[in-house]
Amino acid sequence: MADTYDILIIGGGPGGYVAAIRAAQLGFKTAVVEREHMGGICLNWGCIPTKALLRSAEVFHYAERGDNYGLKIAKPDFDIGAVVKRSRGVSAQLNGGVAGLMKKNKIDVIWGQAKLSKAGKGGPVEVVVGEPSKPAVQPQNPVPKGVLGHGTYKAKHVIVATGARPRVLPGIEADGERIWTYFEAMKPQAMPKSLIVMGSGAIGIEFASFYRTMGAEVTVVELLPQILPVEDAEIAAVARKQFEKQGMKILSDAKVAKVAKTGEGVEVTVEQGGKSQVLRAEKLISAVGVQGNTEGLNLEGVGVAVERGLVKVDAYGRTNVEGVYAIGDVAGAPMLAHKAEHEGTICVEKIKGLDAHPMKRTQIPGCTYCQPQVASVGLTEAKAKEEGREVKVGRFRFIGNGKAIALGEPDGMVKTVFDAKTGELLGAHMVGAEVTELIQGFVIAMGLETTEEELMHTVFPHPTLSEMMHESVLDAYGKVIHM
Amino acid sequence: MADTYDILIIGGGPGGYVAAIRAAQLGFKTAVVEREHMGGICLNWGCIPTKALLRSAEVFHYAERGDNYGLKIAKPDFDIGAVVKRSRGVSAQLNGGVAGLMKKNKIDVIWGQAKLSKAGKGGPVEVVVGEPSKPAVQPQNPVPKGVLGHGTYKAKHVIVATGARPRVLPGIEADGERIWTYFEAMKPQAMPKSLIVMGSGAIGIEFASFYRTMGAEVTVVELLPQILPVEDAEIAAVARKQFEKQGMKILSDAKVAKVAKTGEGVEVTVEQGGKSQVLRAEKLISAVGVQGNTEGLNLEGVGVAVERGLVKVDAYGRTNVEGVYAIGDVAGAPMLAHKAEHEGTICVEKIKGLDAHPMKRTQIPGCTYCQPQVASVGLTEAKAKEEGREVKVGRFRFIGNGKAIALGEPDGMVKTVFDAKTGELLGAHMVGAEVTELIQGFVIAMGLETTEEELMHTVFPHPTLSEMMHESVLDAYGKVIHM
Repeated sequence: MADTYDILIIGGGPGGYVAAIRAAQLGFKTAVVEREHMGGICLNWGCIPTKALLRSAEVFHYAERGDNYGLKIAKPDFDIGAVVKRSRGVSAQLNGGVAGLMKKNKIDVIWGQAKLSKAGKGGPVEVVVGEPSKPAVQPQNPVPKGVLGHGTYKAKHVIVATGARPRVLPGIEADGERIWTYFEAMKPQAMPKSLIVMGSGAIGIEFASFYRTMGAEVTVVELLPQILPVEDAEIAAVARKQFEKQGMKILSDAKVAKVAKTGEGVEVTVEQGGKSQVLRAEKLISAVGVQGNTEGLNLEGVGVAVERGLVKVDAYGRTNVEGVYAIGDVAGAPMLAHKAEHEGTICVEKIKGLDAHPMKRTQIPGCTYCQPQVASVGLTEAKAKEEGREVKVGRFRFIGNGKAIALGEPDGMVKTVFDAKTGELLGAHMVGAEVTELIQGFVIAMGLETTEEELMHTVFPHPTLSEMMHESVLDAYGKVIHM
Repeated sequence: MADTYDILIIGGGPGGYVAAIRAAQLGFKTAVVEREHMGGICLNWGCIPTKALLRSAEVFHYAERGDNYGLKIAKPDFDIGAVVKRSRGVSAQLNGGVAGLMKKNKIDVIWGQAKLSKAGKGGPVEVVVGEPSKPAVQPQNPVPKGVLGHGTYKAKHVIVATGARPRVLPGIEADGERIWTYFEAMKPQAMPKSLIVMGSGAIGIEFASFYRTMGAEVTVVELLPQILPVEDAEIAAVARKQFEKQGMKILSDAKVAKVAKTGEGVEVTVEQGGKSQVLRAEKLISAVGVQGNTEGLNLEGVGVAVERGLVKVDAYGRTNVEGVYAIGDVAGAPMLAHKAEHEGTICVEKIKGLDAHPMKRTQIPGCTYCQPQVASVGLTEAKAKEEGREVKVGRFRFIGNGKAIALGEPDGMVKTVFDAKTGELLGAHMVGAEVTELIQGFVIAMGLETTEEELMHTVFPHPTLSEMMHESVLDAYGKVIHM
């Protein structure tokens, strides 16, 4: 007889495994079906291993500039194999950590490809687990011992948390050799001398920043006029200036018209302002977004509504079919791990009948770990104006902050956008050292519906970069001190 | 005829110069009297130059461990002269910045030692500016050109912002050679091979951390059982363990009974647990606290109440004498630059008749920039219990955080203390990488009287260290995920 669960989750990424832990805490008999690697893309091929690579680049960057700090450091070098090995090791460590959390919380892990076979008929949802239809793209780890395998499983509630994968443009399919997605870019066999990065969103820019810092010639090609297109225009401009200062080439408002593979690498035809040019490089990284993993699950077969490659859900992750839920990337933008985790928690708490709060989608921060870092939450100045709001805008530049000078990090900016009528904080946007760790303060503030008054009364510690958050608020109201 | 001001501020430190800028913004004719250096101790001999030294130490530390990151970095060295020169340069740059802010805001700077000659008689307060009674301890810069000099000045309101100086224990007076205070420790002529640091508050521990990282043998002697005595006991214990792992020797519950100078350095007799031992080192750093600069101002002469070396003030900086105010260190603990800045703003806004809010003293964060960093706000667990509160305590260790692992910074802890009855966040305490930049989120939260519910609903970005703030809150309520 098949095992029966209260909650069965398809996908062991940050959305899925967090939902599973919360479910177990609430007393549900819980299982996770995973076909490839616990921790999902985030932990194995995304957020975490890139941060490890970027940390190596950061330390390399410091060592190259030792004399700026009064230090005597001979020209540093690196072993790309060792840099990659460290990054893979970090992923493996956390991957093992997630497996440990499953065990500790008594969550069954079922290995294989899940497919919904029955749902919405009053009874439990049925899930058939079998071989993946195609081999896992990048198997990280052997299937752990002692996990459950193929078979049919029943559950009162099934949560689809299958995530997303790189979007593929026709004619620019990754071949793993000369055309890379984040999979190959994450573990180069050798250090390429030159790269073209197609797309300047978070993924593209992080790899561009890593490879440039490590010495490669990097050209970024962005279709839109602005790099980091979802960020505030002024912030993106500050970041761009820094990237260019570091020697990165950036072509914006530029379209990749054609990619040809040559003996040495790639030839990329780029159209910009009515003109066409051919760029040559060893590798092309395609970073033009991601798409939801809705295939192979038989979602449509059991009646679950899928729209433009995403599962349709309400604020609690409920689909149109009773007992079937979706969270994380497969349930729509913003495709960020922390959004998936919260959706998982909310979905499970709602199933439990707790007073679950729908997430405020306008209060989900975004971070890009390039150098300089970029972080933001809420509305950009342009978006706020598009919504017809009258705004007050505050700005503070790193050059006016004592800690930034002491750190030797004088480039960057903190920008805040307030509703001029109510004083409500609508958005906060940052570029510069450590801003990915700073943004949470503004996220907390927005969650509590803070106005400028309360932020002005807050005592930010001195000397910290976070004082710039205060100054930016003061600036919006004509009270800035250090400028 | 003497110049007449609306507001005259004695002391150009962070309290004084910020008050001056705010006063100028509000339309007051404003002057600052300074006898030594704009920016005060903070900018010239405290917060800022130590952060510059510690940054050099941080980069040195990374370079020493390059192979941890897959890098090839030959054993690094340093030039202590260059390290100190950089630190002094950072101070000089910011010092010049403050001078520029005075000019931009049309604030007169008067050079010399101020003395109140008349106050509280219905008319303006009179201030005589002359030569300092003793030469400035560490003149940083020549007197800027074009500033006002000695004479008698009148002002409707005089704000005393004279700061503090190192406390001196009898028999352990700094001689600048073998016994140092922060002045000498900030600019060593050569790198000492060994040091004894007396006192393990923020100043003592920051120097201990700097010198230890740069290779000196360091022994810390602390009178109390706990190092970093104002911090939460668990946090201090985590920090201590890390310091000891780095090779720092720490004697707590230990009293310096005698200090003798020898040809080579110092001999320090330490009593601990009824036993006595003699420690030898090249230098002794005395870091046993600071005391207010109330002398030479004729405060008592004009009737201003001074108690235990501090000017007595109300929540708006008002003394018992009309027209005389005090802010910052000279007005009492906590002696922190950010507290002084806010007091300056509040004092001036109250003079203007604005709706100034008294500062919430329990919501002033404290930061120590040792390695690992320490940061906190609000009540420690012990203090909360002393106050008779029933508490819920959450803890999260760095080892469970993906970003911490990716950074190679797995040691540290975030601890939160809640009122068990109301869910009010009473205190937050952190030790580990970047916590001085993280603490502001909890400060904002406390200012908005946040409960655990609201913090749980906040979406902290992944992957960041700040996620541990969330997990620590979840832990207090039995909902922690990654542990």
